[in-house]
Amino acid sequence: MLLYTQSRKKELSIRWRKIQEKMKEENIEVSLISTNTNLLYTLGCIISGYVYLPQEGDPLVFVKRPVDLEGENVFYIRKVEQIAEVLVEKNISSPRVLLLEGDEISYSEWMRYEKVFFPRQIVNGTNLLRKVRSVKTDYEVAELTESAKLQSYAYKEIPLLYRPGMSDHEFTIEIERLFRLRGNLGIFRIFGSSMEAFMGTVLVGENASEPSPYDFALGGKGMHHSLPIGHSGALLEQGKSVMVDINGNFTGYIADQSRTFSVGELTEEACYAHQVSLEIQQTLAEMGKPGVPCQDLYQKSLQIAERHNLQDCFMGTKQKAKFVGHGVGLVINELPVICDKNTELLAENMTIALEPKFIIPGVGAVGTENTFVVRENRMEQITFAPEEIIEL
Amino acid sequence: MLLYTQSRKKELSIRWRKIQEKMKEENIEVSLISTNTNLLYTLGCIISGYVYLPQEGDPLVFVKRPVDLEGENVFYIRKVEQIAEVLVEKNISSPRVLLLEGDEISYSEWMRYEKVFFPRQIVNGTNLLRKVRSVKTDYEVAELTESAKLQSYAYKEIPLLYRPGMSDHEFTIEIERLFRLRGNLGIFRIFGSSMEAFMGTVLVGENASEPSPYDFALGGKGMHHSLPIGHSGALLEQGKSVMVDINGNFTGYIADQSRTFSVGELTEEACYAHQVSLEIQQTLAEMGKPGVPCQDLYQKSLQIAERHNLQDCFMGTKQKAKFVGHGVGLVINELPVICDKNTELLAENMTIALEPKFIIPGVGAVGTENTFVVRENRMEQITFAPEEIIEL
Repeated sequence: MLLYTQSRKKELSIRWRKIQEKMKEENIEVSLISTNTNLLYTLGCIISGYVYLPQEGDPLVFVKRPVDLEGENVFYIRKVEQIAEVLVEKNISSPRVLLLEGDEISYSEWMRYEKVFFPRQIVNGTNLLRKVRSVKTDYEVAELTESAKLQSYAYKEIPLLYRPGMSDHEFTIEIERLFRLRGNLGIFRIFGSSMEAFMGTVLVGENASEPSPYDFALGGKGMHHSLPIGHSGALLEQGKSVMVDINGNFTGYIADQSRTFSVGELTEEACYAHQVSLEIQQTLAEMGKPGVPCQDLYQKSLQIAERHNLQDCFMGTKQKAKFVGHGVGLVINELPVICDKNTELLAENMTIALEPKFIIPGVGAVGTENTFVVRENRMEQITFAPEEIIEL
Repeated sequence: MLLYTQSRKKELSIRWRKIQEKMKEENIEVSLISTNTNLLYTLGCIISGYVYLPQEGDPLVFVKRPVDLEGENVFYIRKVEQIAEVLVEKNISSPRVLLLEGDEISYSEWMRYEKVFFPRQIVNGTNLLRKVRSVKTDYEVAELTESAKLQSYAYKEIPLLYRPGMSDHEFTIEIERLFRLRGNLGIFRIFGSSMEAFMGTVLVGENASEPSPYDFALGGKGMHHSLPIGHSGALLEQGKSVMVDINGNFTGYIADQSRTFSVGELTEEACYAHQVSLEIQQTLAEMGKPGVPCQDLYQKSLQIAERHNLQDCFMGTKQKAKFVGHGVGLVINELPVICDKNTELLAENMTIALEPKFIIPGVGAVGTENTFVVRENRMEQITFAPEEIIEL
């Protein structure tokens, strides 16, 4: 099997050049990439092996598995130490300044690579690579838009799955199945080794306010102490909200979209808060253009919540999330984070999920979440399931 | 919420003592545990935080999230640096020899913890902890046995899901839904950051021999280049085998079981190889008692395959797995590995999946996989779905 075609290489080259530009700024001679997310980014596929990207030119690719890859600059190895042998054979001198993915690879991997290359300096490049990934190529935006489209259509079908008397467990499973049948790849890639979720969460009533160990916008008790997140076995009861947040990984790029459903009507307060969520989102989408600091969006969302006197239930009650949005892409939590301390500026082709949500006591979570692309004049919304509260 | 009850503490204490015994042997004063799997092992639940386990006595537990935990020795922190402050307050001297999970935590986490505790020596304890985890407590065996039981019942229902003309994609999704409805927690914990799978694999015909980047027994092309494993969109056609290997995580402990189904009858060669797989498994189960080297089991499996002249299609064709079994527990790939080089001895209460499988050209994968507990005289099988090839 060919590692990548010539037409695919054109797209990959754009990404290599973006990384190489940053490498030059930091005098990094070579990036050694081995985590699945960055392999996907630089090769367009998953291998067991390494991308060895110099400051100029195309990368060398060192492969352990699968056994059947072909292509220019593809070298088979059994262990990382053999990369050094290949470099000697090809008369390539070992890099003096090497980038490793220091927030992602293990301590022992780092030490092993250090011994292989023995560079003068190693740079922890996790943040550099995440920053590069945060600004998408047009091809990536198209892939994410396709995921967003398929996810939106699947969301529209969700009301058909409801049967009176259902538990959140049953409802979640039918949604998972629907998404899978519509092409969802199932897997939910998340940055940070402690972060876990299955396909996403469906939170009914009070359960939406249950604190979780994970750093998602909302938590949920979960079905078992070994996975304390999401649905908890509660019945879908009259007057409760049902916040559905199931991942949109249909193309490797993960769109993020949540919708509020209800069993019967919700209280006036809940409906009001939901409208405030839509107001926040619209305001942020209009503000969000290149050059705007991320923190401005967060602070604006807080101001609007305060103006409506809803700050106490904004982004949680017992445990509050400290962000109102985040980048999306190959992982669900790409950069940038839309939070109070983040002075980073928005840039064109960043892709960001905004999720202003409220927890209303006695009702549950209300609000919305959509994925946006930062364009010249505003943020363009690419997820499009209906946004009003939908009665099941 | 109470972190753990007194009755739960009895079970956890057994695990703490097992770790502490090994710590004494290696003169480790404190283990700092932060990965989800080892938090589950030492606390029985997931937190965002740290277990600080000294060589003697009970651990201190430092929690960032969830915000509502209570209990003896529970301390809330916002960042790891605050652990040092708590230690000073409680007059506890910083450890001189500290264990960190060096194959699992990132390089930058390791460096950060080193600065906080400034020990004379840091030991990479991943292997120590995995070895402790490889020998289960009776409680853990019971939890795994419960998972194995629920998984076995779910396997028995699989034939009911089949409809003629189905694709492997549709069949997989119906199996996933069935498992979820029967209590499968969905999440599939795997040791090693590069290893990925959704709920497991369903491999039809030729696709079973497709090389994958992941180090599972079998691969499969997958539905998308971003997740090259498992079903590929093929139809369930006459004369093809259907190897189902969906994870048995019903209790946090993951049972491992595969079964061979078929559309119509398979060739004589395929049926023969399937019987050889059963023969290998029975022979290994009888051999496998405390004190037997893991490699003896592997070599015996190879001998039997060779005796039947099936070595070329044993554990793959284009790409062969180099093991015939592996430990199971909180992750699907616990220690020990049943492979050629592993001289480690079996011990009572190890829990091991054996998966002798063959790829038959033109047919697909045949064979079986079951989970066993190492007992005094043999390995006891705890997965019990019917083992013959089942025609759909």
